[in-house]
Amino acid sequence: MRDEYRADLVEVNRLLVSMAEAVRVAMHNATSALLKADQTEAEQVIARDAEIDALYRLTEDKVYDLLARQAPVASDLRVVFTAIHVAGDLERMGDLAEHVAKATLRRHPMCVVPDVLIDTFEQMGEVADRVANKITTAISTSDIVIAGQLDRDDDTMDALHRSLFERMFTADWHESTETSVDIALLGRYYERYADHAVNAGRHVVFLVTGEAN
Amino acid sequence: MRDEYRADLVEVNRLLVSMAEAVRVAMHNATSALLKADQTEAEQVIARDAEIDALYRLTEDKVYDLLARQAPVASDLRVVFTAIHVAGDLERMGDLAEHVAKATLRRHPMCVVPDVLIDTFEQMGEVADRVANKITTAISTSDIVIAGQLDRDDDTMDALHRSLFERMFTADWHESTETSVDIALLGRYYERYADHAVNAGRHVVFLVTGEAN
Repeated sequence: MRDEYRADLVEVNRLLVSMAEAVRVAMHNATSALLKADQTEAEQVIARDAEIDALYRLTEDKVYDLLARQAPVASDLRVVFTAIHVAGDLERMGDLAEHVAKATLRRHPMCVVPDVLIDTFEQMGEVADRVANKITTAISTSDIVIAGQLDRDDDTMDALHRSLFERMFTADWHESTETSVDIALLGRYYERYADHAVNAGRHVVFLVTGEAN
Repeated sequence: MRDEYRADLVEVNRLLVSMAEAVRVAMHNATSALLKADQTEAEQVIARDAEIDALYRLTEDKVYDLLARQAPVASDLRVVFTAIHVAGDLERMGDLAEHVAKATLRRHPMCVVPDVLIDTFEQMGEVADRVANKITTAISTSDIVIAGQLDRDDDTMDALHRSLFERMFTADWHESTETSVDIALLGRYYERYADHAVNAGRHVVFLVTGEAN
């Protein structure tokens, strides 16, 4: 029984790591599709979100099963409780990557992002990649130092997000309403992606230390 | 011990109902502040989000405590598992009401919503009120019929949301980029608010029937 219990906890962790890797790849490819107006790549991101959702359901089922059969306490209960929250954040990160891909398709073959903002979205994509990488490591190794670094990356994302609005609200912004709206929504998707990574990171810190930060 | 257990489950339900009522009031007041450009009302919504967050933490603590001390199984475990998810959705609904209030303040004393869209936002506010009311009832009475009705309300919200974009993407839309961006983001806040209510409703259905729908 005890061995099975350990194996279940390891399996939950393995599922979370797979989800984190998948949502990193999803946003990486969504950004690439967005900036190249690549229809095929965007469609792949959308199709593969079903895999992330399937991993999410597997994680939920495993956690539920663990609670029902093993009644974990103390640090093991923290593992399970954390897993529920982290899985929720990761699932949402996958959705946000899918939203980016859908925005790409909506305007295809036009590129949604005007030339003057390509660089900003490239940087947002890089920060998204960085936070997803860090949360993957934090989950797989319970590294609270890396989990704690996510706040700083989130500040960078917020600054990039604000810069989009500053750019749009100047006199020399002559893009269509449709483009302005797309940029505002895309900016929000990246910003929320990083927010969820920060949230997940806080849960990892709680898992390790037993204290909310 | 058994009595304490029952009392704990009742307390969790009471907390969720309080949260649901609070997020209904929050979005109701946020919509009123938005449409009247009422600074005081918007500030109150923002201030009171802390109360919703506090209820959320109380719920989480109570659930954690229940899992640790009582190791619920079967339908009681479903109650606790559902509570975690529903509390997360409700907390997020509170945040979205706060976002509406913040958008109101950003443009004060101007009204963010142009005259031609006042009616649409009034309707979105009404749908938001309706879904919040239904989720409150569904949580307090485990009424799966009401929980199931949320999908239809969500369709109404989605249609209103789409109509905002249709209105903005016509030739006679001459509002500033700032207004277009605000409308796009506000539309999204209302749409997400309803999405979370639908999610919470699905969890209530799972709670009652043991089956995800």
